[in-house]
Amino acid sequence: MTSPADTTTEPVRPEARAPRGFQDRRGHDLVAERRIVQAVSEVYERWGFEPLETSAFEYADALGKFLPDADRPNEGVFALQDDDDQWMALRYDLTAPLARFAAQTWETLPKPFRRYAFGPVWRNEKPGPGRFREFVQCDADTVGSDRPEADAEIIAMAVEGLQAAGLAPGQAVIKIASRKLVNGVLQAAGVTEQGQTLAVLRAVDKLDRLGPDGVKLLLGEGRLDDSGDFTRGAGLNTKGVDAVLAFLAVQAGSRDSVLNALDAVVGGTEAGAEGLNELGRISAALKAMGVADEAAGIDPSVVRGLEYYTGAVFEAELLLDTTDDKGRPVRFGSIGGGGRYDDLVARFTGERTPATGFSFGVSRLVSALRAAGQDPAGDARGPVVIIAFSEDDMAHYFAAASELRGAGIAAEVYLGKAGMKAQMKYADRRGAPAAVIMGGDEIAAGKVTIKDLDLGRELARKVADNDAWRSERPGQSLVDRADLTATVRAILDHGK
Amino acid sequence: MTSPADTTTEPVRPEARAPRGFQDRRGHDLVAERRIVQAVSEVYERWGFEPLETSAFEYADALGKFLPDADRPNEGVFALQDDDDQWMALRYDLTAPLARFAAQTWETLPKPFRRYAFGPVWRNEKPGPGRFREFVQCDADTVGSDRPEADAEIIAMAVEGLQAAGLAPGQAVIKIASRKLVNGVLQAAGVTEQGQTLAVLRAVDKLDRLGPDGVKLLLGEGRLDDSGDFTRGAGLNTKGVDAVLAFLAVQAGSRDSVLNALDAVVGGTEAGAEGLNELGRISAALKAMGVADEAAGIDPSVVRGLEYYTGAVFEAELLLDTTDDKGRPVRFGSIGGGGRYDDLVARFTGERTPATGFSFGVSRLVSALRAAGQDPAGDARGPVVIIAFSEDDMAHYFAAASELRGAGIAAEVYLGKAGMKAQMKYADRRGAPAAVIMGGDEIAAGKVTIKDLDLGRELARKVADNDAWRSERPGQSLVDRADLTATVRAILDHGK
Repeated sequence: MTSPADTTTEPVRPEARAPRGFQDRRGHDLVAERRIVQAVSEVYERWGFEPLETSAFEYADALGKFLPDADRPNEGVFALQDDDDQWMALRYDLTAPLARFAAQTWETLPKPFRRYAFGPVWRNEKPGPGRFREFVQCDADTVGSDRPEADAEIIAMAVEGLQAAGLAPGQAVIKIASRKLVNGVLQAAGVTEQGQTLAVLRAVDKLDRLGPDGVKLLLGEGRLDDSGDFTRGAGLNTKGVDAVLAFLAVQAGSRDSVLNALDAVVGGTEAGAEGLNELGRISAALKAMGVADEAAGIDPSVVRGLEYYTGAVFEAELLLDTTDDKGRPVRFGSIGGGGRYDDLVARFTGERTPATGFSFGVSRLVSALRAAGQDPAGDARGPVVIIAFSEDDMAHYFAAASELRGAGIAAEVYLGKAGMKAQMKYADRRGAPAAVIMGGDEIAAGKVTIKDLDLGRELARKVADNDAWRSERPGQSLVDRADLTATVRAILDHGK
Repeated sequence: MTSPADTTTEPVRPEARAPRGFQDRRGHDLVAERRIVQAVSEVYERWGFEPLETSAFEYADALGKFLPDADRPNEGVFALQDDDDQWMALRYDLTAPLARFAAQTWETLPKPFRRYAFGPVWRNEKPGPGRFREFVQCDADTVGSDRPEADAEIIAMAVEGLQAAGLAPGQAVIKIASRKLVNGVLQAAGVTEQGQTLAVLRAVDKLDRLGPDGVKLLLGEGRLDDSGDFTRGAGLNTKGVDAVLAFLAVQAGSRDSVLNALDAVVGGTEAGAEGLNELGRISAALKAMGVADEAAGIDPSVVRGLEYYTGAVFEAELLLDTTDDKGRPVRFGSIGGGGRYDDLVARFTGERTPATGFSFGVSRLVSALRAAGQDPAGDARGPVVIIAFSEDDMAHYFAAASELRGAGIAAEVYLGKAGMKAQMKYADRRGAPAAVIMGGDEIAAGKVTIKDLDLGRELARKVADNDAWRSERPGQSLVDRADLTATVRAILDHGK
C-alpha cells in the first residue's frame, strides 16, 4: 500500500462519515448506557439468569420474519449471501437468536433455561431523528416453563431492573394483560372470523382518540367522521359491542379488583377464564415476591404488536409527565415490554416450547431516565489533568499521575504541545475535576499547585461580569507535594 | 403470520444452527471475557482514556484495505450495498473506525484524544478450529500526540491492563521495537530498493528456523537447502550482511543496554538515530511511570505485520511455557500488540495526524490466562436453587429467594415440573453452591433444609465407591427458617 500522505499526486480521499442511520457514542451518553446495562445485569444474575451472547449473524431462514413491519416481510434486515450461497442476516432483536439457540442446544441445557443478553441489534429501516439502524437491546427470558410464575418472575425482575437503572418506585409501572383475555372478549362478542377480529382490534386501538362513543360506532355499523367520510364498522351486534365496551371500561385499581371486574366480562368464556386464571397466579406470585400493585398492575388495554405473543403480555411505562424540547407536556410511553411466546422454538423443532421474556432498548431507557430527572452518568468525571510545562520535568508529571492512579483517581499527563492556557482549556473540556500544576519553582520547593476546576467554573458563573476574581485564582492552592493525593481527593469528595 | 405450531400440514422447518464460523458464548467463558473487559476498562479509564463506540458498519471506502491478507484486498470483510447503492462493510478492527471518527470530528475533540473501545469485529475468512469470523477486540489509542511519551503511556497502561486481567508480573512482557530501526539497518546495509528490502525482511524472519548462519546465506548470494533447492538471497555485500546480523545479534537485557548495543549498529544512520532517540524517550518515560525492564523491554526483532505502522511497535507476549492438549510444550506467542500509525487519519484529511495504540483479542487473552493457570471466572457460581415441591407453597419459595437476593446472593425458585431428584440435578448443572429444601413439614415447623452442594460433590468424589455416606446426607443441615441467609452465606464463604 502506498501511504496517501506520502504521495506527491493528489490522492482520492474517502470522506470521513458514519454510514447513514448509524451513530458514534461516547462520553456521558455512553457512560449512562453502560451503567444501566451493568446495573440491570447484576439484578438479572442475582435472579439466576445466566449471560448468553449469540453472534451478530443468523441464517436468514432461522431468523424468521417477525419484524413489526409486516408489509415488508423480506425487508427490515441487513442480509448478505455467504460464499457458500447461504443467506445470512444481522439479528433484528435478541429473541429470534435465543429461539434458534434453544432449539439447537435444547438437549444439553439445564431446564428451564434462564438467560439474559444485551447487545446491538440492526434494523434496515429508514433512519430519522433519534431513529437509528443499530441500537442496544437488553433481554431476559425463561425458556421451558409454562408456569405463570415464570411470567411473574420476569415482571418482578423487570421492576427491580428498572429501579436499579435509576427509576424510583412510582416513576414507572409494568402493565400486564393477556392475549387470552382478548380472545375471550372476541369469543363473548361472537367474533370468529379473522377480518372481523382485525376490525375489532382496530376499533379498540382508537379508544384514546375517539373515546367510548366513537369506538362503539366502529364496533357496530360504522362511523361518519367530521369530514363526512364513513368508516365501515366491525358489524358486531349489540351484545357484542357491549362486551367489548365493558372490557375497555374496566377501571384501573389493585390487581385483584381489576381481575374481579374482568371476570364479570370474560370469565364466562374458555379463553377468558384461562387468561384470568393465569393472571391470578401471576398476581399471587408477584405478591409473594413483594411486588406492589403500584409497580405492576393489570391493564387489559395492553395489546402488544408482535404477533408471536401467545399469553401474558407486559408493557413497562414511564409514569411521569414529561416535556418535549419546547416545554410542552408529552406522554413518554413504553420503555420496554415482553410477554409469553410459546411458539417461537417450535418453528425449528415442531414441539411447543413455552417461553416468556422482557426486553428494553438501552438508549430509550436513558432518555426515560433523563425525562424523569435522573442522569445515570451524573457523577461521571474526567481525569485529573497534570499540566506539562517542560520536557525536562516529564518524569515528575508521570510520577504524580501514577501516584493519583495508584489511589484509584483517574489522572493523565497532558501530552500535546500547547501552552498553559490551552492545557487548562483541554482540562476543562475533558471534564477534569482538578488540574495539577508543577512548574520548575514548585518542583524545586517540593510543592504543587492544585486547581479545583469545579469551584473555578462555579465562581466564573457567579461573577462572570466581574473581573476582580480572576486575580484571586479561585479554587487554586499551593500545597506540599506530599499532600497531592489527599488534596485532590478532598476536591473529588466535595464535588459529590 | 401463521404459527407453525398451529398448522395442520407439515411445515417446512428451518434448521437451528449458528452460521458457519460464528459461535454462541455463555457461562464460564463469557463471564471470563466480561471480567477481563471490565478490569481492563477500569484501568484504561483511570489513565484518562474515554470510552467510544462506533457503529458495526463503515462505508467500504472509509474502512480502507488494511487487512493483513494483502493478496485479497477486496476480500476479508462482510460487505453489502445500502439502498442508496453505497457499499457498507462490517468493521474488521477498531482502529479503522477510530481513524474515520477522528477525521470526522477532529475540530470538536479535546486534543490529544485518548479513547478506548471494545466490541466485536468481523472477518470474512475461512473459519477453522478456534478461528471465528466474529470476535471481541479491546483497543486503546491516543490520537494527536507525536510524543514518544504517548507511546510509553500506551505501553505502561497495557502492562497494567494485562496485570488487572490476571497475568502476574513476570508472566507477560511487552517487547518494543521501531520501524525506524529497521529502516536504519536497511540504510546501513545499503538497501534502497523495495524488492531487496523484502528479501532482507524475509531472511530476517527465518532467524528462528535457520539460525544466524542460514540467515547469513539468505542475506548474501543465497542458500542451498537439504533437499537441493536453491533460494536466491538478498544480494547484500559483506558489510550489509554484517550490519543486519549485528542488528539481530543484539542481546536481550535492560532497556538501556539494548539501546546502547543498537546504537553501535544503527546509530550512524539517520532513521536509526531517530528511532533510537524515540525509544530512549519511551524508556525514560516508562521508568518514570514505574514500569520495570522485565515488564517492557526493547527487542529489535519485533516487526509487526500491518503495513500502517510508522514508528514504535509493541508486542505483548506470554512468557510461560505452555502445553497443548497432548501435554507437549508450545510457545503461546503474541497476546496483543500495537504501535504508532501516523498516516491513518491522513487517508481522510491529507494531514498527518500522529496516533499510537495497543490492541488485544479478548478470547485469546482468556486462553493465555488459562495457559498461565489463571481462570478469570474461577469463582463464578450459579444461583442458590430453591427446590419446588408443591404449588401451594410457591409463596414460601419466592419469599426465601427474595430474602437471599436481598442479601446480595443470587437465588432462584425451580420453575419446571420435575421431581426432587431432577431438581437436584438441575441445581448441580447450574453450578449452584446450595439447594434450599422447604417441604410441607419443614414449613410447618418453621425450618428449612440447606444442602451444601460443593461439599456434597467433594464427598461424592472421595467416597465414590462407598455407598455408606449416602445415608448420612453429607453437607445437609436442618436449620431455623430465620437462619436461612446466614447459613447460605457461610456455605458461600467457605467455598472461596
